[in-house]
Amino acid sequence: MSKDIKTAVFGASGYVGAELIRILSGHPDFLVTGLAAERRAGETYGEVFPQMRHLDLPKLKRIKEFDLSEFDMIFAALPHGVTQKLAKALPNETKLVDCSADFRFRDPADYKKWYGLDHAAVETQPSVAYGLPEFYREQIASAQITANTGCYVATALLPLIPILERQLIDPSRIVIDAASGVTGAGRGAKEALLYTEVTDGFHAYGVGHHRHMGELDQELSKAAGMPVTPSFTPHLLPQSRGILATIYVDGEAEAIHAVLASRYRQEPFVDVLGFKETPATRHVRGSNLCRIGVAPDRIKGRTIITSALDNLVKGASGQAIQNANIMLNLGETTGLPMGPVFP
Amino acid sequence: MSKDIKTAVFGASGYVGAELIRILSGHPDFLVTGLAAERRAGETYGEVFPQMRHLDLPKLKRIKEFDLSEFDMIFAALPHGVTQKLAKALPNETKLVDCSADFRFRDPADYKKWYGLDHAAVETQPSVAYGLPEFYREQIASAQITANTGCYVATALLPLIPILERQLIDPSRIVIDAASGVTGAGRGAKEALLYTEVTDGFHAYGVGHHRHMGELDQELSKAAGMPVTPSFTPHLLPQSRGILATIYVDGEAEAIHAVLASRYRQEPFVDVLGFKETPATRHVRGSNLCRIGVAPDRIKGRTIITSALDNLVKGASGQAIQNANIMLNLGETTGLPMGPVFP
Amino acid sequence: MSKDIKTAVFGASGYVGAELIRILSGHPDFLVTGLAAERRAGETYGEVFPQMRHLDLPKLKRIKEFDLSEFDMIFAALPHGVTQKLAKALPNETKLVDCSADFRFRDPADYKKWYGLDHAAVETQPSVAYGLPEFYREQIASAQITANTGCYVATALLPLIPILERQLIDPSRIVIDAASGVTGAGRGAKEALLYTEVTDGFHAYGVGHHRHMGELDQELSKAAGMPVTPSFTPHLLPQSRGILATIYVDGEAEAIHAVLASRYRQEPFVDVLGFKETPATRHVRGSNLCRIGVAPDRIKGRTIITSALDNLVKGASGQAIQNANIMLNLGETTGLPMGPVFP
Amino acid sequence: MSKDIKTAVFGASGYVGAELIRILSGHPDFLVTGLAAERRAGETYGEVFPQMRHLDLPKLKRIKEFDLSEFDMIFAALPHGVTQKLAKALPNETKLVDCSADFRFRDPADYKKWYGLDHAAVETQPSVAYGLPEFYREQIASAQITANTGCYVATALLPLIPILERQLIDPSRIVIDAASGVTGAGRGAKEALLYTEVTDGFHAYGVGHHRHMGELDQELSKAAGMPVTPSFTPHLLPQSRGILATIYVDGEAEAIHAVLASRYRQEPFVDVLGFKETPATRHVRGSNLCRIGVAPDRIKGRTIITSALDNLVKGASGQAIQNANIMLNLGETTGLPMGPVFP
Repeated sequence: MSKDIKTAVFGASGYVGAELIRILSGHPDFLVTGLAAERRAGETYGEVFPQMRHLDLPKLKRIKEFDLSEFDMIFAALPHGVTQKLAKALPNETKLVDCSADFRFRDPADYKKWYGLDHAAVETQPSVAYGLPEFYREQIASAQITANTGCYVATALLPLIPILERQLIDPSRIVIDAASGVTGAGRGAKEALLYTEVTDGFHAYGVGHHRHMGELDQELSKAAGMPVTPSFTPHLLPQSRGILATIYVDGEAEAIHAVLASRYRQEPFVDVLGFKETPATRHVRGSNLCRIGVAPDRIKGRTIITSALDNLVKGASGQAIQNANIMLNLGETTGLPMGPVFP
Repeated sequence: MSKDIKTAVFGASGYVGAELIRILSGHPDFLVTGLAAERRAGETYGEVFPQMRHLDLPKLKRIKEFDLSEFDMIFAALPHGVTQKLAKALPNETKLVDCSADFRFRDPADYKKWYGLDHAAVETQPSVAYGLPEFYREQIASAQITANTGCYVATALLPLIPILERQLIDPSRIVIDAASGVTGAGRGAKEALLYTEVTDGFHAYGVGHHRHMGELDQELSKAAGMPVTPSFTPHLLPQSRGILATIYVDGEAEAIHAVLASRYRQEPFVDVLGFKETPATRHVRGSNLCRIGVAPDRIKGRTIITSALDNLVKGASGQAIQNANIMLNLGETTGLPMGPVFP
Repeated sequence: MSKDIKTAVFGASGYVGAELIRILSGHPDFLVTGLAAERRAGETYGEVFPQMRHLDLPKLKRIKEFDLSEFDMIFAALPHGVTQKLAKALPNETKLVDCSADFRFRDPADYKKWYGLDHAAVETQPSVAYGLPEFYREQIASAQITANTGCYVATALLPLIPILERQLIDPSRIVIDAASGVTGAGRGAKEALLYTEVTDGFHAYGVGHHRHMGELDQELSKAAGMPVTPSFTPHLLPQSRGILATIYVDGEAEAIHAVLASRYRQEPFVDVLGFKETPATRHVRGSNLCRIGVAPDRIKGRTIITSALDNLVKGASGQAIQNANIMLNLGETTGLPMGPVFP
Repeated sequence: MSKDIKTAVFGASGYVGAELIRILSGHPDFLVTGLAAERRAGETYGEVFPQMRHLDLPKLKRIKEFDLSEFDMIFAALPHGVTQKLAKALPNETKLVDCSADFRFRDPADYKKWYGLDHAAVETQPSVAYGLPEFYREQIASAQITANTGCYVATALLPLIPILERQLIDPSRIVIDAASGVTGAGRGAKEALLYTEVTDGFHAYGVGHHRHMGELDQELSKAAGMPVTPSFTPHLLPQSRGILATIYVDGEAEAIHAVLASRYRQEPFVDVLGFKETPATRHVRGSNLCRIGVAPDRIKGRTIITSALDNLVKGASGQAIQNANIMLNLGETTGLPMGPVFP
């Protein structure tokens, strides 16, 4: 264990930041030498996240207090719009994995359309890799900046891309009904996220309009070779972690299962279950695994796919470290949690 | 308050039984004079459900210990197959509301198909009312036996029947993605229902094959005037109560909303939210209300409907008492809980 | 049902306010004609609490927009310090039940000591009744203002007062270990109350110093006829509702049980369980009941008492309406929920 | 990573078994070559615990199917009474860590007293090490069999032993009020452990009589050099993992804090918080850490100690592997999870 890669986590006071620290603390190569969180600057990490008080970590600072060239790798878990500005000042020798949506769109106009902000680093965008390792491994390996996928998007793309590429389903009839644990909404102190407002209840939100749609469309369309616009409805679950997407497609279940099983046989973090089996989010909790089930609908020619991952791991921090491992040629699975924490 | 209707609850040791007792204890007309639960016979109700120990209730017996003619009204929350036998011995002056699937199918062959049992009271079936009061009020009023709808089924039928009747949607393209709290699975001591196996997680079950499908098909087909076979996937929520159905249809959202708002304006227990609003299960908890939201999908010509109810109330015990109120001409809303218990 | 008592709820946007509305909506006498919430003024109640959208309620206003003489009864669930000012302007014909700590202390200096504020209505204090109906029924009946007890305090006082009065326990060796659901902390948008920060965990807070101690001391000392200072530690439970106090005393269990059982036999809302039985908060959820268990410690001469209530009902809104029923001579149990909502 | 220690987990179908597998799968030395679970024999581990299906593990067998000499180390998580029989047949070259109570009592009569069974391996008992590594490290290092402590017991002993040894507190006035997540009750399919019966509620159990008392007394008495009999009340929390003990003692807080902080400064898995700080179970979830807080009671000369650990890790499987590491001289912290999984 060398732990000699100087590493920063920017946006360290949020849940994605905490999960980055949890995983990095057990990683043999990354040494956390910088932590930034604008509103908590000056505090120790144990004050912000008491579960981490046993770790030897630097105090929190503001981003502008750092010389970015001090870092070999920066993980950014910042509000949308901030990383674009950061990227413009990125030294050549420093790599960056971004967990926001800032660089997920190939076309900067899409960023504006879905996030309402002008893209502040249009010139940087073309060199950014899209951070879904199972499909963009080569680009990630050579990129200076990688844009992590959104959590809902990763859950849906992993089962859908291979079967769209093989034209196994009708691209015009995809329904993605998805549900997420509340960590997906972050650590902001909002009434709607209080324990009492989330526990023992379930509801849909963003019906008909959700920011992850733009990113979904981009990647599904690329896979299909034609414009794809799925129905997509997110729901809020009374649980901390986990996303499950239940996906209704027009296509044959056995063929779909065969293609997915074959496509992911060698992938360390994608686990296609036996035909007709279904995954549960509790069985990927705390792990970098995505688990996928395929079952025939009772309507002939239709199939129901279920896909589960931990939004904080494979949907954010774990994927980010998987990308960083690739960018630095460290061995893709190094330091990543496999074993789900259940019960 | 007369409390002079002699009332039995059969299957009183389950959650539907407990919820019947909770509501009946505040109802001005029904007096519980008989409680049956085969495996708990001889115990007090407070031993079976400690929350009820303040109530003055008879001890639990076995069904066969009762002379059924002692009762004006029997609520049956029994395992599938038992009520059919009970119904054959029902005295003429005793009415029955059944919470099982025993009498939900007009065609006894469908009962066999979906529940695997021969129908044991084929001759009784034609006189049974289907217990969805919003659509079968007259039949219920004159019936001796009413068959409560299934909980998932009620959640889906309330928004779908009016728009199928008006031909506002394509009957061949309905996707019902639904999730239920765990009380829907009963109080049986099963590993899969343990706290640790349910909390902080979410999964689909019965993908492509679930017993409620037969009942759904029957009523949707009747409404559409043609065979309707929706995609339907149930999920298990880490919460005690509540069902949410998210329903994807091909049809215009504004027309759908207008029809539903108009159809339910006078219904005391169906609340159609404002256009584009969405209900949450926590906002119907403990109440006999069903709340429905309608929003346009981003795909032109498609609509996403969300429907929420408490599976133990509007999906079971509340609906049963609503039906009993109708059967005995007591005033349909009498004694039924309106105000959801939140937080 | 006359519903002719003109009633206001001030502080209607908090959880105590919502629970007042839930209970009042089913009460035969109180008609809600005024709702105040400073920060939500102008909104409908359904916007603030969607579960209530089916009710016909006035819009929210600021307190100063009301002429207090419009009301026969005001329920105040306001931040500490506000009701004292309100009370000074209270018309003679208007009664008030206060859910804050503003009038709980007989000695205004104690208010200052525990809440850090000068008492703003010292002259009013002597005429205020302390709102624990089981012990102050007569004072409440003739009072214009009643000060509801704190939720932890009610949980501990109900078992402790009778046995201190009878000198059955050593007043110098009382340990009250208590735990509350998170609604006790209100609806304020604070990081510490987020779902993710509360679920699946348990911790003590206010160790050695908590505001409810002053009120506890006042009433326990009065009962004992000498100064009593119990050890008291509150904990936060991962649940919405419910307080359980586990109380360790030096005294004989059988005598304690006999006195409590006898003392509360006629009380409608206090239920002393059988000897050695223990209550659970889930078995009083949504109900105005307090349930008490008494068991011998294995150490001779010591006893462990457990006391459970719903902090929003018997610990706040239910108790308030019980008090209002007494003040207006409506029948103490009128409109109050008995049947716990479980599961 | 050699992974050359042949290792068995007996009782692999319970939660302690699953947590052993989770930790062992990331441990560099132990290779799981045998899994036993009487009722699930013949199944794969992924059938019993789907979260583990990605691991390459042997199928489950019955214990009697194994030649015990195949194993260098056996972890036993069996029902009480079974390991005693197993121990009698243990080959000399095979070591055993037992997670049951079978060997926790130095005096076999105490085993009979608290567990109601005759001790079946009286002759083996004297050579067994008591598995609280922070106090029995040397004995564990040379033992063939180590008896893991009970989960409640570990939570209480870690703060209490050092201050009893130093005579900082009155041994006759200790109150241990403790609460545990439901995994402590195992995976048996019992009505009382159903999601619906555990969620959103809190209650005490075993009031005045609980099996862990005997073990508590044994170790506290040894530390104090005189008989110690604390009051001890366990409670069931609506959460999966975690124990918090709130301990009331007669003694000075600052002295207690100083002694504990000093005693545990070098211990890798015991973290004494700053004076007056309090731990939360969610901040040790999934980790082998025990966190301890010390605060003065408001009553002069009394102190409130809070101690938190994860009952499945430091209270069971983590402690077991810590003991095995010591027994095999592998480095005490090897392979053990430090970073709590939060949120």
